[in-house]
Amino acid sequence: MPNVSPVKWHLAHTTWFFETFLLRPRMGGYRVYDASFEYLFNSYYNGISEQFPRHQRSLLSRPSLAEIYQYRAHVDDSVKHLLGEADNQIATILRLGLNHEQQHQELMLMDLKYNFSCNPLYPAFCDTPSIDSKTIAAVRGSVEVPSGIYEIGASPENTRFCFDNETPQHKIFLEGFKLDQYLVTNAEYLTFLEDGGYEPADLWLSDGWSWVQQQPAEKRAPLYWQQLDGRWFEFSLYGLNPLNLSQPLCHINYYEADAYARWSGCRLPTEQEWEVATALCAPAAPTIPSWGLHPSVSSGEDIVVNVAADQATDPAPVLHQLLNHLWQWTSSAYAAYPGFNPLSGVLGEYNGKFMVNQMVLRGGCCITPEGHTRSTYRNFYYPQERWQFSGIRLARNLT
Amino acid sequence: MPNVSPVKWHLAHTTWFFETFLLRPRMGGYRVYDASFEYLFNSYYNGISEQFPRHQRSLLSRPSLAEIYQYRAHVDDSVKHLLGEADNQIATILRLGLNHEQQHQELMLMDLKYNFSCNPLYPAFCDTPSIDSKTIAAVRGSVEVPSGIYEIGASPENTRFCFDNETPQHKIFLEGFKLDQYLVTNAEYLTFLEDGGYEPADLWLSDGWSWVQQQPAEKRAPLYWQQLDGRWFEFSLYGLNPLNLSQPLCHINYYEADAYARWSGCRLPTEQEWEVATALCAPAAPTIPSWGLHPSVSSGEDIVVNVAADQATDPAPVLHQLLNHLWQWTSSAYAAYPGFNPLSGVLGEYNGKFMVNQMVLRGGCCITPEGHTRSTYRNFYYPQERWQFSGIRLARNLT
Amino acid sequence: MPNVSPVKWHLAHTTWFFETFLLRPRMGGYRVYDASFEYLFNSYYNGISEQFPRHQRSLLSRPSLAEIYQYRAHVDDSVKHLLGEADNQIATILRLGLNHEQQHQELMLMDLKYNFSCNPLYPAFCDTPSIDSKTIAAVRGSVEVPSGIYEIGASPENTRFCFDNETPQHKIFLEGFKLDQYLVTNAEYLTFLEDGGYEPADLWLSDGWSWVQQQPAEKRAPLYWQQLDGRWFEFSLYGLNPLNLSQPLCHINYYEADAYARWSGCRLPTEQEWEVATALCAPAAPTIPSWGLHPSVSSGEDIVVNVAADQATDPAPVLHQLLNHLWQWTSSAYAAYPGFNPLSGVLGEYNGKFMVNQMVLRGGCCITPEGHTRSTYRNFYYPQERWQFSGIRLARNLT
Amino acid sequence: MPNVSPVKWHLAHTTWFFETFLLRPRMGGYRVYDASFEYLFNSYYNGISEQFPRHQRSLLSRPSLAEIYQYRAHVDDSVKHLLGEADNQIATILRLGLNHEQQHQELMLMDLKYNFSCNPLYPAFCDTPSIDSKTIAAVRGSVEVPSGIYEIGASPENTRFCFDNETPQHKIFLEGFKLDQYLVTNAEYLTFLEDGGYEPADLWLSDGWSWVQQQPAEKRAPLYWQQLDGRWFEFSLYGLNPLNLSQPLCHINYYEADAYARWSGCRLPTEQEWEVATALCAPAAPTIPSWGLHPSVSSGEDIVVNVAADQATDPAPVLHQLLNHLWQWTSSAYAAYPGFNPLSGVLGEYNGKFMVNQMVLRGGCCITPEGHTRSTYRNFYYPQERWQFSGIRLARNLT
Repeated sequence: MPNVSPVKWHLAHTTWFFETFLLRPRMGGYRVYDASFEYLFNSYYNGISEQFPRHQRSLLSRPSLAEIYQYRAHVDDSVKHLLGEADNQIATILRLGLNHEQQHQELMLMDLKYNFSCNPLYPAFCDTPSIDSKTIAAVRGSVEVPSGIYEIGASPENTRFCFDNETPQHKIFLEGFKLDQYLVTNAEYLTFLEDGGYEPADLWLSDGWSWVQQQPAEKRAPLYWQQLDGRWFEFSLYGLNPLNLSQPLCHINYYEADAYARWSGCRLPTEQEWEVATALCAPAAPTIPSWGLHPSVSSGEDIVVNVAADQATDPAPVLHQLLNHLWQWTSSAYAAYPGFNPLSGVLGEYNGKFMVNQMVLRGGCCITPEGHTRSTYRNFYYPQERWQFSGIRLARNLT
Repeated sequence: MPNVSPVKWHLAHTTWFFETFLLRPRMGGYRVYDASFEYLFNSYYNGISEQFPRHQRSLLSRPSLAEIYQYRAHVDDSVKHLLGEADNQIATILRLGLNHEQQHQELMLMDLKYNFSCNPLYPAFCDTPSIDSKTIAAVRGSVEVPSGIYEIGASPENTRFCFDNETPQHKIFLEGFKLDQYLVTNAEYLTFLEDGGYEPADLWLSDGWSWVQQQPAEKRAPLYWQQLDGRWFEFSLYGLNPLNLSQPLCHINYYEADAYARWSGCRLPTEQEWEVATALCAPAAPTIPSWGLHPSVSSGEDIVVNVAADQATDPAPVLHQLLNHLWQWTSSAYAAYPGFNPLSGVLGEYNGKFMVNQMVLRGGCCITPEGHTRSTYRNFYYPQERWQFSGIRLARNLT
Repeated sequence: MPNVSPVKWHLAHTTWFFETFLLRPRMGGYRVYDASFEYLFNSYYNGISEQFPRHQRSLLSRPSLAEIYQYRAHVDDSVKHLLGEADNQIATILRLGLNHEQQHQELMLMDLKYNFSCNPLYPAFCDTPSIDSKTIAAVRGSVEVPSGIYEIGASPENTRFCFDNETPQHKIFLEGFKLDQYLVTNAEYLTFLEDGGYEPADLWLSDGWSWVQQQPAEKRAPLYWQQLDGRWFEFSLYGLNPLNLSQPLCHINYYEADAYARWSGCRLPTEQEWEVATALCAPAAPTIPSWGLHPSVSSGEDIVVNVAADQATDPAPVLHQLLNHLWQWTSSAYAAYPGFNPLSGVLGEYNGKFMVNQMVLRGGCCITPEGHTRSTYRNFYYPQERWQFSGIRLARNLT
Repeated sequence: MPNVSPVKWHLAHTTWFFETFLLRPRMGGYRVYDASFEYLFNSYYNGISEQFPRHQRSLLSRPSLAEIYQYRAHVDDSVKHLLGEADNQIATILRLGLNHEQQHQELMLMDLKYNFSCNPLYPAFCDTPSIDSKTIAAVRGSVEVPSGIYEIGASPENTRFCFDNETPQHKIFLEGFKLDQYLVTNAEYLTFLEDGGYEPADLWLSDGWSWVQQQPAEKRAPLYWQQLDGRWFEFSLYGLNPLNLSQPLCHINYYEADAYARWSGCRLPTEQEWEVATALCAPAAPTIPSWGLHPSVSSGEDIVVNVAADQATDPAPVLHQLLNHLWQWTSSAYAAYPGFNPLSGVLGEYNGKFMVNQMVLRGGCCITPEGHTRSTYRNFYYPQERWQFSGIRLARNLT
């Protein structure tokens, strides 16, 4: 898979990011560790240099891991020295570099999971936690948002940190809508699948149907699902285990999310709807799962509590599983906000040049570093991609 | 090119459309002409049947053209009989069939142009009209639209005809913007090209840059342009002729339109902006060029008149070249309007299933049958496509 | 299929061959019909010019068929004039041009058959002859050739015509072998197929097995066979008809021929073996089928007679079905004979440059123009190709 | 490059070979180390099991190198135990396994070289030896072999070891020919290249010319050559160094070898010619270079001595650089010898199933383990492949 890079490469790349955007322009007398690393570890910044082809990264047996650790130590030392004399500009780039590194921490686990899944040995990255999830019930409550003018987007002045693509804050008009409180579960998607969800073309977008037809029969299921002797299993960072029906559905692409929504008589929310609803209906204290590597690590207790709250006559229903369970597909193509200005210089390539052909996901997921994401955060992937931790939250029109 | 079909196929397909959606369900005792045509001439309606592969259409040496004319006569006769007993439902489908046929009239000329352009003989489809376009000057005036809530989209009740994707009418909030009165000309795009517009990656979206790099050097220009001995020529339905600098630029894809806009310090309009501005600033009597096969047939006089009007102190500037010159790329991904419901049944596949990965173009073009298009009309193509008659109208933020 | 050209193209190409290699260099004052045809109708002669891409030939809607007929008339007229003054060199090139045209007469029917076979209407090119083939029995007699030194190849002096690749005559040493008198029949191949011949990898060459695995299940059969409701049909120039079991097997590629031979405990002959056996064991008067378009047209009578002859105690068994039934795969890669010299000049490209990656077929087939082929004739195709009229004659080692 | 496997994989595969073909069938009570390794480390034996896709081998981050060493120790121990009770059959398979391992020792270095060459750091595998090659002169003497019947091939009874594809010994008739005493040098090939050898189509086989046109301009040179600032360099296991003109040319494919031979007015020898000449004209004591990793390590002294011998009036000229410099392309397609019988059982897949589409190379090379090769040895590669250590020895017809 061309998108997947070795763990070693991620470490070198995030190190290169600090060297290129922080140390070289801002630290007098900084000595570049190895000039040839620019070509190897530049991901996509055309304003800096050409890049080593992405799909060949796994062939780089040199530099060795040991040498990349040395590179990292060299850069870490320099950053520490620079911290003593940090001004506002340095702080801004440093913060960007740290957020960038957090994104790659998530990517590392995504890539490692994909790589392990291709290995017929199905290696486990870590032990499976023993959690009791028997008491979890499917709950399909929803929150309702009335028509009106709302303001969305982030304002750098009012935020600890945001990416340029979240700006500027701006007004929108929204028709009223409903948004589900919970993510779609494995059990629900299995019903869709067993109902022949991958068969009738009329459930699918045209490009989605082309994608389905290119898949061999056994791949017409979420990315890491597989059926052995009639029983469903799911590969995760815990290895290959029986599918946990009560967990949120994970690793579907946009086409699958859209087909599921159509099958269920609903639709996906726009990113504007998702953000407005989250601003209005997020729980006061966010329900944080015991942090882990996979949706299945969210503790059963946490969810049971929410269920109980919902089943009570809830005067103000809240949205659950927002920022730390799974990224949630929206029906919005990734595009510039009105008045958008990318960061100046090469860092403008960070987000802006991807504003075509991709779809926005909102939220965050169980392998997103804690504190990295927020309600205005805009993640984006191509509609056919599904190795990210992606799930579904359904929306509906008011009638 | 897989998108291009033979002229003969278009004729058979539009005939099949009437047979399938009008005669078979609505005319008692209708005799299907040849059951095997369903597989051959169904374009993409999965709800009807499987389809003969699109890229193999040019291999169908049978049925012969003579037989397809017989097919057409058979269907035409039946439609005439049905007209005597037409009710509202029949009228609705008939109207859809006629609009569908108009779309294929445009496609036939697009496809024929592409096919001829691949032939080293550069055949001309028709003679070049002799027009005097020397007096045309480049004019870059713009109209300004203030912030506010607007209503866009079509309401079937108030319109002679509209496609389902134009509905429902709905409210939007728009930030104020400016929109150019005229389309970008060949002269202007040539300046971009000669300024090295296809070279620096930072003018291009990431996917656009990938597209540029896949093109051989001589293809880094609008689709039908070519340079011979240092001089630019353009292939059109009139054959290969020297590039007419004063005509609107044609046959660029979304990536090129977006890069040009960035280079010029502007941007493309959203489809909402285009529609609102058109509603506000269209000329009372639309400037219709003498209808022809190519932008270059628009009569010089027509444009000269407009120029004169603009240069006068115009209290209410108008938008020109709206519906019958060139389709105009917008920055909007093709998506459902809030509350969108596709047509019921198989005809729901007409528009709805394409609502991903494509970009909206607005307006109409010189080979669009007269009366076919309107200000709410939503055309859509993939961002890399450029064999349609596509041009650029620039927009800007207010500051 | 990139190998297949429209009938119209073949006509123009063979015309171009006479114009390029005969009229232009040999006829004073010859006027080239249209200089642009050189690029369009040059098949593969790099020494003449670049070529229009082969796989796009079907897109050439211009020049029209009518114009190509005019081109042909123009060239025919000039050739007739030249005949009055023909010297030896002119005669040599004319003879080559005529043999070249005969090859394209065969190719036209091959290509037309393939094109029609892709059309779900399964058009018939001509009516099926009514022949009674019920009395034909499978006969598997063989001829035996002892070890020794033999001479193979053609000598231009002793032949009315031969291609350069048949020269020079040269000595070889052969181990003794047996060669079957008759070609493998459809019935025999069907037994192989129903025995699971396409399943076990160990019957197949490694590249052949890759080819099998790339075929969908329904294509794991000779090219024009298909199974409908459990019954086998074969598409031919007579349309789609039930498989005639007693006819020779046709349209298999080298991998299939080799796997069948292995399954049957035999092997394919080398081209040297085929030629030596033919020289020794051809019937005095060759058994010519009533000439036709397909193996199935060979008259039953003809074959019955041979069967009778074999079943008699035949002191000198003969080889049947040699030159006018089907081309016969050999196990010899197409290569230069010792001392081979290609024709001088551009015509040296005719045969020599293909001497890698292809396999030799010997004999001739039912659509080969009468008199075109001979026992030294070397036909060649890539091992995966099977749209030519190819069959199998088995060989065996002695002891 | 799909052909290239990680070093770790080679070690596991050769270990698996012993386990599969020696220990499992021959050692009572042998415990398979890990059943899942069969799928991972089976290269191409369909008779054993399906295989993990070749091009994904580099993605196997598990089992780790440490675990593969354990696997090796486990198998080595068992083999040692088995040696005590070895009968003839065990000895035969053991010998095959050792020869197989030697082939992979060569492959490891080939693959490692290719992998390093794709790394812009151009890592060196080992230090460059300091040799003085200034005194080497180009010598183009040849040996002459008269027409006659010869015997080639190996007889297992008379040989310590041979592969099945070298058998049976058999008679051939050869026309007389000349064969060069030395391999083509870098200097000679550079002359070809600078003479525009990659440009005129008429020097190339048709498939070779297609290959040339698919190469970007800078790749139209031997595999590891590159031009920097107008100067030629060659990448080798010693890293990137200036091209040594006096060394034998290495890493060209069949098409390049054939084009070079044509350009030089010669041809490539057949494999029969190569073997016969070697039997007749090999030096009594083979000239063994100080063994190394690359042609450039052959000591200058060795060659100088030969040159001197040649320049003397040599009554019986000898062939040099036969078995331990470079593999030498022949014009023979890889095919079965008359009467060939592959090994019985699954080991029959070792050589026989590759007998189509590949060309024979003879000799051996500087990274071939000492003693592994011999004059009857048949190596084979596809004509476009050139990552093996391949060179050119020219042949000529007499007269």
